[in-house]
Order: sequence, then C-alpha cells, then structure tokens
Amino acid sequence: MNSIQLVQQIESKGSFLCVGLDSDPRLIPSTFQKESDPIFAFNKAVIDATEKYAVAYKPNIAFYEALGPKGWESLQKTMDYIPKNVFTIADAKRGDIGNTALKYAQTFFEPASSGFNFDSITIAPYMGEDSVTPFLSFEDKWVILLALTSNLGSQDFQLIRDENNIPLYEHVMRKAMEWGDADQLMFVIGATRTEYLKHVRQIAPDHFFLVPGVGAQGGSLEDVAKYAMNSRVGLLVNSSRGIIYAGDDTSVSAAREAKKIKEEMSQYLDQYWIK
Amino acid sequence: MNSIQLVQQIESKGSFLCVGLDSDPRLIPSTFQKESDPIFAFNKAVIDATEKYAVAYKPNIAFYEALGPKGWESLQKTMDYIPKNVFTIADAKRGDIGNTALKYAQTFFEPASSGFNFDSITIAPYMGEDSVTPFLSFEDKWVILLALTSNLGSQDFQLIRDENNIPLYEHVMRKAMEWGDADQLMFVIGATRTEYLKHVRQIAPDHFFLVPGVGAQGGSLEDVAKYAMNSRVGLLVNSSRGIIYAGDDTSVSAAREAKKIKEEMSQYLDQYWIK
Repeated sequence: MNSIQLVQQIESKGSFLCVGLDSDPRLIPSTFQKESDPIFAFNKAVIDATEKYAVAYKPNIAFYEALGPKGWESLQKTMDYIPKNVFTIADAKRGDIGNTALKYAQTFFEPASSGFNFDSITIAPYMGEDSVTPFLSFEDKWVILLALTSNLGSQDFQLIRDENNIPLYEHVMRKAMEWGDADQLMFVIGATRTEYLKHVRQIAPDHFFLVPGVGAQGGSLEDVAKYAMNSRVGLLVNSSRGIIYAGDDTSVSAAREAKKIKEEMSQYLDQYWIK
Repeated sequence: MNSIQLVQQIESKGSFLCVGLDSDPRLIPSTFQKESDPIFAFNKAVIDATEKYAVAYKPNIAFYEALGPKGWESLQKTMDYIPKNVFTIADAKRGDIGNTALKYAQTFFEPASSGFNFDSITIAPYMGEDSVTPFLSFEDKWVILLALTSNLGSQDFQLIRDENNIPLYEHVMRKAMEWGDADQLMFVIGATRTEYLKHVRQIAPDHFFLVPGVGAQGGSLEDVAKYAMNSRVGLLVNSSRGIIYAGDDTSVSAAREAKKIKEEMSQYLDQYWIK
C-alpha cells in the first residue's frame, strides 16, 4: 500500500487506529477455544468488529511463532481475512544483515515465498544500514523502524547522548532518513512524553509514526495528535489489549472500544489536521 | 546446557566451532531437491558430516521462516536430529519487551509451546532491559546479545561514543552484565579488528563470545583465539557458508572444511588456552 492510499483510508474512515492482534490462546474468550483454529476464529471476530474503525492491523508475530507451525497457519488465515484496503504491519522487530535480511523480507513481503503479503514490518536498527535497506527495495512496502520506544528499557540505550548531545534515537532517525523516504519508512515512537513527541516530529516532519503507547500502555491520544500530526496525518496509533480483550463477547466489546477510540480520533483529525 | 557442559564439550572435541545452518533451497545441492523435505535432508547431511568437529549448531531462523509453516517443520526435524550434547543457537535476533519477549522465549526455549528446545537465542539490545531479562529466567538457557557486529552497518550506531567517549557497544555489554552473568549471557562479537577483540575481552573477561566473522565473511581465527580466549575458552566461532556450501557432495565437503577449522582450533587451544 502506498502513502496516498493510506492517507485516503485515514480520511475516509476518520481514524488512524491500528488494532494490535496480540492473540494469546490463554487470554481469548472460552467461546473460541472450541473452534478448530481458536486464534484465527478470535482474530476473525476482532476484525469483523473493528474493520470500520481501524485503518491498520498489527499482528504481533511472537504470539504466532510461539505456537509453532500451527501458529503460522493461524496468522496466514488471519492475513487472508483482513480486507485488502487495510494496512498491515508485521510486528516482528527483525534486524539482521544482507542475505538474512532479505530472507526476513521474503517472509513478510513475498507471497510466493512464505504466503504472506504484509504492507510493512517493524525493524530494529542496532545493526545499521545493511540491516534496514534490504527491506526498502520492495515497492509499496514499508519499514517501521524502532526509534524511541515507550518501555522502561528504552532509557538504557535509546537516550544515550553523544559528545554533541544528540541522543541515539535521533541518530537512528536521521541516518534512516538517508536510506528511505517518507513513502517507505515510518518510525516507532512511544507516546509517553510531550517533549519527545515534539522533538521526533521536528526531526522527521514528513514521516509516519507508529505509536504503540496509548490505551492499556498509557499515553495521551490527544497529545499525540496535537504534537505529532502532520499534513498527511502521519500517525498510526495502536491499541491491542484495550480493544481485543475488552470483554468476553468479543464482537460487541472490541467494536465498542474501537469505536470509542475512532470517535476521539475523528475529533482530533478535525481539530489538528492541517492538510 | 550449562557452561560446564559447554566447556567440557569444547575440551573433548578440541574445537570451538559453531556450524551455521543458513540452509537455502536455492543453494543446496540438487541431490537434496528430490527429497520430501530438502532442507532437512541437507541439514541432516551437514550434521552427520560435522558433528565430530562442531560444538554448536546455529540455524539462521530467517531461512526457515521465509518458507512458511513447512520451513518451521524442517527446523523442528533438524533440532530433533542434532545430538543432545551439542549446543544449539536460535539465530533469531529477536528484541521486544515484556509479554512479547516471553512469547519469543517460549518459541525457542519451551518445547511444550512451539516444539523447540534451543539452548540459546540471539537478541538485539535496542529496547533495553525489559527486552533482554525475560529470556534470562530459563534455567541453563542463554541470551546471546548483539554487541559489536562485523557488518558495515555496525559503524552506524554501535560505535557512537557518548560524552565520556564510551561507545554504544560498551554500554550494551556493561548494562547487560548487570542483568545476566557469564553462565547465561554471551555476546555477539564480530572478529574484524584486533583492537576491538582486546577491548571487548577487557570489558567482559568471563563471558562467552559468539564470533560470526570468520570463514566466508573474513576475519582471522588466530587473532580471535589470541586476543579473546579466556580461562573457559569463552569462544564459539561460527562458519556457515564456508562449510555447508563447500561442495556438491555435502557429506565429503562439509566434513573436510569443518575438520580443517577444527584442526586449526585444536592448535590454538593448545597454544592460547590457559585454564
């Protein structure tokens, strides 16, 4: 999916919501347990309930991997079920070089190889350029690079400042912007603090941010919209557990929670989106 | 596998060779293509040919993932076939936090979850403590953390120095040594330059290093032994393509190349290992 299609979808739905499919056999309602593929049945219910409100789905690959080959099959069925006009994110946080990176790209981007055809993949930057650029040669596919995350451990390395007082996350963003443009590269930005939101938007005025830290993980949606929205919206804000595990009747509870966030987002689009 | 068993194996085989199973359907000899599971048949031949000389096997997970569910099945059969006394490394370079990290740990460490029972997994440090420690709670399982890699892109971020002139890879190593000890934590160290080998051994005198940069990727095995061997050997040196793709008759060519490296290693163990 290219950026024009993504922005059109955001505009037509009045939403920049990404639903995280962190689907865990031990957390899904018992009604799904009797299905032949409980994880797919659950995802299907979540997708049916939320597709009006969500512009992106983000399966957390770890949750499928942990189930062995049958987990990958549940993921495959889920991907086949997601409507084609919705943006998809393989939240895989891969990071390896050269040939190995190409294999990961094939896994998530090349249906002929693995069966998958994701629009994007999350990538870790530690190994540098040759661990990122192999993913950028696929047309209309995106790299979503970890920059400033919202977890406690983000302070261990991401905030280390060099002799010129530039933090590591800024190095990551500036370097990566030499490798890929705003039509193929996004950044993962934790939504914890206003000053960081302002700073990362200043570093990358045109790029999309995937923001994982609202909802169950805390973080203010209004602050994200206010300080980080750009002329193409430039935001995908994720909620996982807050939507998918909102209640035992998934069809009702997931729709209710997604709708609630979507309505808040519509309001912020009216308020803060200057096209 | 614990460190005592690992060191015993190194001593009894006179080798610290890790064989990388970067098994690619397009690169394996045509004789394997007619098998029902070509990748497993190839790995079986490699393992049979090298198990006398190798103390560790390192499947590169990307190569299996890229094949979809059947790739995971080939990997499962490979893992079941590797002799139990040989150390196994899931070269997965995962890096995510909390619950997600636990799912990745389950994938590779918990047979009841995914079927796999690896001894270790490679991990990327960018997200910090909560992306590393979940893997450290498994008994006799190891985290092998990316520290200083040998690829060109390693210069992009790993060598950035803070205001006290400390490079990022040193921060990563020192922080990680607060989270895990030398019996559960190794580091990935590219074997490209003598001064780096000396430096990382000074930072972490007791920890094992997984060194991927010799063989097809260049790097001097003698320098690695000379500058980075410690009282427990403390080295696993990997070769992938140089062994597994050494010739069309895998049984002969893989054995020949692994034996050659093993003999060099035996010599360095005599020369540089001060118990």
